[in-house]
Amino acid sequence: MSSNSSIVPCASGSVERWDHEADVVVVGFGCAGSCAAIEAAELGADVLVLERASGGGGTAANSGGLIYLGGGTPVQRESGFEDDTEEMYKFLMAACGPGVDADKIRVFCDGSLEQFRWLEEHGVPFKRTFYPEPGKEPPTDDCLVYSGGEEAWPFNEIARPAPRAHKPRAPGAAGGFLMQKLLTAASRTATKVLEDTRAERLITDGDGVVVGVVARQTGDLRCIRARRGVVLTAGGFISNREMTRRYAPQLARANWRVGTDGDDGSGILMGMGAGADAIRMEAGSVSIPIYPPKEMKKGVLVNGHGQRFINEDTYYGRIGQRALYEQDGRCWLIVDAETYLVNEVGMQAAVVEESFTELEAKLGLAEGSLVATMDLYNGHARRGVDPVFHKKAEMIVPLDEPPYGAIDCTLKGAVYAAFTLGGLRTRPSGEVLRPDGSVVEGLYAAGRTTSGVSAWGYASGVSLADGMLFGRLAARSAAARSKGSRG
Amino acid sequence: MSSNSSIVPCASGSVERWDHEADVVVVGFGCAGSCAAIEAAELGADVLVLERASGGGGTAANSGGLIYLGGGTPVQRESGFEDDTEEMYKFLMAACGPGVDADKIRVFCDGSLEQFRWLEEHGVPFKRTFYPEPGKEPPTDDCLVYSGGEEAWPFNEIARPAPRAHKPRAPGAAGGFLMQKLLTAASRTATKVLEDTRAERLITDGDGVVVGVVARQTGDLRCIRARRGVVLTAGGFISNREMTRRYAPQLARANWRVGTDGDDGSGILMGMGAGADAIRMEAGSVSIPIYPPKEMKKGVLVNGHGQRFINEDTYYGRIGQRALYEQDGRCWLIVDAETYLVNEVGMQAAVVEESFTELEAKLGLAEGSLVATMDLYNGHARRGVDPVFHKKAEMIVPLDEPPYGAIDCTLKGAVYAAFTLGGLRTRPSGEVLRPDGSVVEGLYAAGRTTSGVSAWGYASGVSLADGMLFGRLAARSAAARSKGSRG
Repeated sequence: MSSNSSIVPCASGSVERWDHEADVVVVGFGCAGSCAAIEAAELGADVLVLERASGGGGTAANSGGLIYLGGGTPVQRESGFEDDTEEMYKFLMAACGPGVDADKIRVFCDGSLEQFRWLEEHGVPFKRTFYPEPGKEPPTDDCLVYSGGEEAWPFNEIARPAPRAHKPRAPGAAGGFLMQKLLTAASRTATKVLEDTRAERLITDGDGVVVGVVARQTGDLRCIRARRGVVLTAGGFISNREMTRRYAPQLARANWRVGTDGDDGSGILMGMGAGADAIRMEAGSVSIPIYPPKEMKKGVLVNGHGQRFINEDTYYGRIGQRALYEQDGRCWLIVDAETYLVNEVGMQAAVVEESFTELEAKLGLAEGSLVATMDLYNGHARRGVDPVFHKKAEMIVPLDEPPYGAIDCTLKGAVYAAFTLGGLRTRPSGEVLRPDGSVVEGLYAAGRTTSGVSAWGYASGVSLADGMLFGRLAARSAAARSKGSRG
Repeated sequence: MSSNSSIVPCASGSVERWDHEADVVVVGFGCAGSCAAIEAAELGADVLVLERASGGGGTAANSGGLIYLGGGTPVQRESGFEDDTEEMYKFLMAACGPGVDADKIRVFCDGSLEQFRWLEEHGVPFKRTFYPEPGKEPPTDDCLVYSGGEEAWPFNEIARPAPRAHKPRAPGAAGGFLMQKLLTAASRTATKVLEDTRAERLITDGDGVVVGVVARQTGDLRCIRARRGVVLTAGGFISNREMTRRYAPQLARANWRVGTDGDDGSGILMGMGAGADAIRMEAGSVSIPIYPPKEMKKGVLVNGHGQRFINEDTYYGRIGQRALYEQDGRCWLIVDAETYLVNEVGMQAAVVEESFTELEAKLGLAEGSLVATMDLYNGHARRGVDPVFHKKAEMIVPLDEPPYGAIDCTLKGAVYAAFTLGGLRTRPSGEVLRPDGSVVEGLYAAGRTTSGVSAWGYASGVSLADGMLFGRLAARSAAARSKGSRG
C-alpha cells in the first residue's frame, strides 16, 4: 500500500518473517490494556502486550485512581448510599452527551457490579467508606466520592444522586497503586509483555483483515502476528499537539495536558489507517480545580460579560468544559469576606475591592454588569434560592460582606487540565467500525483510543472504568475469534 | 477488499471492463463540480461528470446565490466600498474559526478578484450595486450585501468592514440563475455529463491510488476509469440523518435542513473509505432568519436564563450557531411598542405583556432575570452604548415603551436552517489527505464534501465561493497529474 503514508497498514504478503506471534496482541499496557490482557489470558488465549514505555501503567498510573462504578456496589451500600443500574444509566445518558452511545452506556451500567467484583478478585481493594468532598480522589484511603455533579442540577432531577467514583484503598492519588495491582494480576497469567516496544503500524491481509502489528524495538522493526486479533489500548491524543489542534482546536488552548507522552494518538491513527472511523474528536475533558473544599461553591462564577453561566456546585469538569469551549476561557469566582477561602491548590482572590462596582472595573467587565448579576443573585440568595442556575440551597449565601474578591479562573490564571475524549468508533464488544458501520475484522479497541461512555460530557472515574470494562470486552471478542481463520 | 464494507474501494484488478473513461472524473454537478469541470476542460483535459440527479445544479441551485468575494471587486468599488485582500483575510481568519485553515483562507482571498473575473467571463453577470439589508440575498437584482457580521463587533475592530456577498444579476434568490449560467458554460466545453448516475465507490490500484469510480446507472453498475484523477464535489451530509447524528449530534437537532437528497455524505464516505481524513465533522452553519428588516436588531435577544448572549446586530448565522450549540435552542427577541415589527418571514411577538416581570413569568424565565437584563440594557441604551455586547449605536434604543413582546426564536418556534461544514481534509490544491497528512493519490475534493474556508464560523456566500474556487483548483491539480501514470 501507499508508501507515502505512515498509517496505512503493511500488507501481510510483504512480511518476510514473524518475529513474534500470539493469539491476541494488545497495544498499550495501561488500564485498558492490562485488563484486556488479563481477560484474554484467563480465557486461555496466548497474549502478547506491546508497551512503548519501559514499564506498564500508562496515564492511569499518574491518575487519581477514581473508577466510576455503580448500581449498588458493596462500597455504596455499606457507606449508606442507595443506587441502582437504572439511575446510573439515566445519569450517564444525561451527563455524557450530546451524542452518547446508548448501547455502550447500557453495557457499562449493566456490567458495573461485576466489574467491581472483578477488581476485588484481581487484588484491587476498596475501603467501604464515603469521603464528603466531591470532584477528585480523597487525600485519605477512603473510597467513594461524588465525581460528576450527580447531586447538582439538572442531574439531581434526572436521576437519584449517588456517589460512584471508587478509589482503591491507598492514601491520596491511587492510580499508581491501582496499576501496580493490575500489572501484578497480569503477571500471574501467562501474558507476555514486550516493553520498550512501540507499535507503529498494523498489518492486514489481502482482504483488509488485521493480522498483526509492526513495532519498533530499540530501533529495529519487528513483525508481530496476531492469530485472533489486535486490541488497541494506546491512550488518547492530548500529547500530540498537531492532532489536538487539527481535531480539537478549542481543547488545544488548555494549559495543562493530562497524559503521558504515549497519548500521542498513535493508536487512533493506526486504526484510522486500517479504515476505522473516529468520532467526537473535538471533545475533551477540561477541569478547573476550583474545589475542594466544597465551600468554594458558595462563590459566584461569572464570565467575561459579568454574567453567571452555570451552577457553581456542579462538577468542576463541567465548569471547565463550558469555560473553555463556550466562555473563551474567561471566568472569575466572586467571593465576599464571609465566603473567602484559599482552595486546596492555592487559588485565591487575586483582586479585592470594597464594592462590586470597583471589582467589575478592576476585572475589565462592562460597567454595571457584575453589579446587576450580584444584585439578582443576592436578592434570590436572601431567600435561599437560585431560580436562574439552580444551585443547591446549602451552597447559597448572599455575598454582601465587603471586601469582595475575584478568584482568577481564566485560562491565563488557572489550571485548565485537559485530555481528549474522541477516538475510534467501536461497538460495546470492542469491534472497530468503519464510517459505513462495517467492522474492521481482526481489530479491537478500548480506553481513550476510542470514543467511550463520555461522548462529550465527563465525570471523574469514567475513563478508568470505561477502559477496564471495554478493555475486557474487547479482549473477550478477540479471544473468541476463530483461530488462524485468516492471514 | 473487505466485502462487508460499502465504502472500501474496489480493486482495479477486479474490474472486468471499463464502461467509461476520462482524464478527470468529477462526482457531482453542483457549484463546485461545474466549476471543476469547466476548469479541467479548458485546460484540455477530457472530463466526465457523474451526477446522481436528472440534471446539474445541486444544492447551489436552491440557494440564494450569494458568493463571498472581496479584495476590491468592481462591484465593491463601483458601489463605494473600499476593500482589500488583507482585510478580507483578517475577517475570515477571525470569523471562520476556531480551527481555521490559514493556507486555505490565504488562497481563497488571494484568488478572489480573479474568481470574480472568471465568473463574469463565464457568463455570470453582477450589477454594480449595494443593497442595504444584510444577511441574505436581496429581493431585487442588486448585488452586494453584508453577510457575515463584518460591520458588527468584534469583527469591525479586527478588519475594516466591507460587504462581500455578491449576488448574480437576477431578482431574489439567484442560485438557480447562477447554476444555469455555470451549466451553460460547462456545456460549451467538451465536458461529458452522465446524469442519473450515482457514484458509489472509488476504485484503487494495488498501491491505494484512486484510478476510477463505480457508479450506478438505472440499476446497473458501471466502472469508470479516471486516467488522471477523481474530483469529489458531492455536497455535505445534512440529508443523512444517521451521519448527522453520529458526527454532529447538536446540529442534528436543527429543524430545517438546507440541502438536497444528494447531501447524503456519500462523497465524504467514499473519500474516507479510500483512507481520507475528515475534520470539523461536528460543525454546521445554523441560521435563524431574524432579519430583514435590520431594525429587528434593535430588539434584545435573551437566552433561557433571561440573559443576553450575543450582540443582536451580528450575522444571524452566528446567532443561530450560538443558540443551537450553546443555548440549547432557547432564546427570545424582546421588543417594545416602539421597536415592534413583523419580520420578513413573519416572525412576530408571540407573547405580549405590560411589564418585563409579567413577560419573564410568561416565558418561564427565572423571577427577576429578564428584569435585571433589561434594566442593565436600558440604562446603557439611554446613553447610546452597549458595553456588555458591543451592539452598534445605531441599533441601540431603550426598550421602555410598553407593551413588551417576545419573539419566539426557540427551536420549537423558529426556523433553524442548518447544513454541515465538516468534510474531507484537503490541501488548497484539492489534494485529499489521510490522518497522517499523506496524500491519497489520484483523489481530489472541493465544496461541502470538504472542510473549507468556514472551519466553524460561517458567513453567507462562503460555500458557493469556496466550492467554485477550490473546485477549480482541484480540477487543475487533477488535470495536471501525469496521464495514465497508474492503474
